[in-house]
Amino acid sequence: MKIGVFDSGIGGLSVLKSLYNSKLFEKIIYYGDTARVPYGTKDKDTIIKFCLEALEFFKQHKVDFLVIACNTASAYALDALRQNCSFPIFGVIEAGINETKKQIKDKNKKILVIATKATIDSKEYQKRLTLEGFTQIQALATGLFVPLVEEGIFEREVLNSVFNYYFKDIQNPDALILACTHFPFLSNPLENYFENNIKLIHSGDSMVEFLKNHYTLKIYKETKIEFYASSNVDYLKFIAKKWLNF
Amino acid sequence: MKIGVFDSGIGGLSVLKSLYNSKLFEKIIYYGDTARVPYGTKDKDTIIKFCLEALEFFKQHKVDFLVIACNTASAYALDALRQNCSFPIFGVIEAGINETKKQIKDKNKKILVIATKATIDSKEYQKRLTLEGFTQIQALATGLFVPLVEEGIFEREVLNSVFNYYFKDIQNPDALILACTHFPFLSNPLENYFENNIKLIHSGDSMVEFLKNHYTLKIYKETKIEFYASSNVDYLKFIAKKWLNF
Repeated sequence: MKIGVFDSGIGGLSVLKSLYNSKLFEKIIYYGDTARVPYGTKDKDTIIKFCLEALEFFKQHKVDFLVIACNTASAYALDALRQNCSFPIFGVIEAGINETKKQIKDKNKKILVIATKATIDSKEYQKRLTLEGFTQIQALATGLFVPLVEEGIFEREVLNSVFNYYFKDIQNPDALILACTHFPFLSNPLENYFENNIKLIHSGDSMVEFLKNHYTLKIYKETKIEFYASSNVDYLKFIAKKWLNF
Repeated sequence: MKIGVFDSGIGGLSVLKSLYNSKLFEKIIYYGDTARVPYGTKDKDTIIKFCLEALEFFKQHKVDFLVIACNTASAYALDALRQNCSFPIFGVIEAGINETKKQIKDKNKKILVIATKATIDSKEYQKRLTLEGFTQIQALATGLFVPLVEEGIFEREVLNSVFNYYFKDIQNPDALILACTHFPFLSNPLENYFENNIKLIHSGDSMVEFLKNHYTLKIYKETKIEFYASSNVDYLKFIAKKWLNF
């Protein structure tokens, strides 16, 4: 089974890692729109336009289905993508909601969604969580988290001041949805910051579970990955090698 | 005189503001590549490609000359732009060097250049300052400054922890070159942080002085500005109105 993974840049490697580690896929084609990253600060029309351009790439590569690793792209472009394509397309938002439902049985637990500005503004998570019956939903755009990860800044002093800035009016959540591909890199500092048994929902792990519901998958000895990018594919490969322990 | 101002996004408004306030220009055409911002994290080939595409826009608008407000674009694309164009093109780096020379007479003063990763990696400032005879040059990529400004985060606790992170190994400079369009928004906190009579070099003000050397300019009652962007021009206009006090 040959699957496509699309992301706005290199952040989607956190989703790729989950898919890769699951050993459930024979071949993965990863494409990152590194020339135009980030999407999370851009407007709906632009995001849809860029995603439809990426779709042509995956059509040429004849993938069996496509995973949209980027939450912002999933929030805005999923309908447009599906209308222009014959193979199945799965977005990380539906996967994340599915996983939240599975992990959090008490609908009165406090759920905090953190994401880019565009993802939060789309209200996709908030609407879907409400439809699932959750009653205590907070959603917060934490715009500085992506550049913190991109810059590789994990110093406690910096992170704590940034966390204090964003979370000053937030009630301690029971579950934290990491609704951006970059945020799993901040899992440990976030868990430490909230100082309780907070449940973290991770887009990549959620996607693996979600796909198991849709397909009968077998275990492969090896998963082959091909990397493509709209610019600087060598840098993408360099980061991927480090991150996936190739 | 009709001039063009090109920037990777909205940051170039800090340069536009200086040009506007000078009253030396009758008409300014501003174009921001907001769909693909930022340039400062991208590679040379991509930056040149995007700049050459923008050049076509300014050719159609028949500007008398073009100002490249983005330091990263100035660092990588100036030669390529000039080779593909008949009107003069001025980059903020040559303007900034010119202003530093004017303001800092003692060549042994400590100069600190802060910019995006791409601008610092290009070594354009370092090479030119060395050619001008400056002996104590430090250059530092402060990648988090752009998103801090874009997010509107100016809280002392956050800024101080970020400044401590970047400047921990830096000797207190005598002059600070703000080699990115976003950085003038951090002028006051930076001046306070370094706690001495540090001289700040601002790309926009430097450009006005630089253009005075090249043209005999007269004062206009009113400067007309037209705004264009590769996406979400309404947001650009909204920020411009606030920032330029239209």
